[in-house]
Amino acid sequence: MIVVKVGGGADIDYAALCDDIAALVKQGQQIVLVHGGSSETNRVATALGTPPRFVTTASGHVSRYTDQAAMDVFMMVYAGKINKRIVELLQQRGINAFGCSGLDGRILQAERKATLRIVENGKQMMIRDDRTGTIVGVDTRMLAVMAANNICPVIAPIACSLQGDALNVDGDRAAAQIAIALKADSLLLLSSVPGLLSAFPDESSLIPHIARADIERYMEVAQGRMKKKVMGAGEALAGGVGRVIMADARIQNPISQALNGQGTIIA
Amino acid sequence: MIVVKVGGGADIDYAALCDDIAALVKQGQQIVLVHGGSSETNRVATALGTPPRFVTTASGHVSRYTDQAAMDVFMMVYAGKINKRIVELLQQRGINAFGCSGLDGRILQAERKATLRIVENGKQMMIRDDRTGTIVGVDTRMLAVMAANNICPVIAPIACSLQGDALNVDGDRAAAQIAIALKADSLLLLSSVPGLLSAFPDESSLIPHIARADIERYMEVAQGRMKKKVMGAGEALAGGVGRVIMADARIQNPISQALNGQGTIIA
Repeated sequence: MIVVKVGGGADIDYAALCDDIAALVKQGQQIVLVHGGSSETNRVATALGTPPRFVTTASGHVSRYTDQAAMDVFMMVYAGKINKRIVELLQQRGINAFGCSGLDGRILQAERKATLRIVENGKQMMIRDDRTGTIVGVDTRMLAVMAANNICPVIAPIACSLQGDALNVDGDRAAAQIAIALKADSLLLLSSVPGLLSAFPDESSLIPHIARADIERYMEVAQGRMKKKVMGAGEALAGGVGRVIMADARIQNPISQALNGQGTIIA
Repeated sequence: MIVVKVGGGADIDYAALCDDIAALVKQGQQIVLVHGGSSETNRVATALGTPPRFVTTASGHVSRYTDQAAMDVFMMVYAGKINKRIVELLQQRGINAFGCSGLDGRILQAERKATLRIVENGKQMMIRDDRTGTIVGVDTRMLAVMAANNICPVIAPIACSLQGDALNVDGDRAAAQIAIALKADSLLLLSSVPGLLSAFPDESSLIPHIARADIERYMEVAQGRMKKKVMGAGEALAGGVGRVIMADARIQNPISQALNGQGTIIA
């Protein structure tokens, strides 16, 4: 089994991704897809008069600030439009897909970050109404039933808190936790870059291999959003996933190409 | 088992509905929920610059005109915001709910209406890019697994065409087909009216009982959206569902009150 996380950049060709999934599934491969949606979420949020806000945490990560209005838009775009359009693309290719979020059936259980320490204009501040969380458990029951019925799960990264609240969780780390829980052979993190770059945004600076023992060091190399991918990769490997590949989502056959060695392989 | 369809009027209290579902499920009742979302869809579509359009078919039904842009909004609101907010309300009440649409796992299979004959300004016209359909099959496998695991399904009325395309289907008739496929005892159609009214909108003109044999006659009494409810009721009864209750979704304990005899009972 392969768990694939596909990003949410405006330049990602979901039809090409679904062509590739359909070909692989027809060859007998089991695929679980986790998806992003940030670019479309920003567009819709702005159009609805609630433009997105991003915060930089004290630990240096950039994350979406998700109050209740932002969660409405997050649900609309991630669990609504992006999730169902991907399911439709797969159904049109003869693949029986099933879209849901991690809130459904409590597939993804998360702990809410009660307070978020952020840095704004050099000063530290506390945010208390942010609806983001860290995954603490994965319920694989429904995913296992889907797999047994040749149904391809398509999952939006929304989790269920211990109190039942919907939480925005990082898609790369959600995919890592799902890969661990399903004992996947491989975790693929596909996005709008060809892999981890030593001199971002220079795409010729692609790092083809990272030894498992060196992951910590590459946290320094990773910029912005890539930090979460490297963190997710480390979590997946520590949890027993055989290999993690960070690769390009903008190309034809993005999954097959990654499996054939394109991208940054961490094993 | 009870199948409940709740409408999408702005005056519907989903928290009260979910309080009632939680109490009934804890008493051992199995409930499958199908939901609407028309009011919020209209609001979001208008805010995004693609206001909703409605057409009157030659047979006299008013329906949403769903081109691809309208389908994007339909997916966002129905399968995104409304579906996940209902799932969240149930999770917060300790009920493990699972939200999806009929596109997922091909739960609802529909035939697309290739052309739609409509009446505009007294003239008949043909529409060819409408993404609406009529349900021709229900796959109960995933719903049965949910029921066996004490998971409450929450379903948005989007179906999968024979070609894999997403189709807007009528929620009341979708609920009727699901009730038939699941061999439900009762189908409840809850909306922003207390039941079928003989002199709409006079709520004191509620019709408390309709004999099964008289349904055809009541198609004449029903106005606008209620026609689809009466049609769905007739289909459900013909398909073996024990009784159909059309009742008020705006009140406290709407399901319990309907089961206790409030509304229009057709049996």
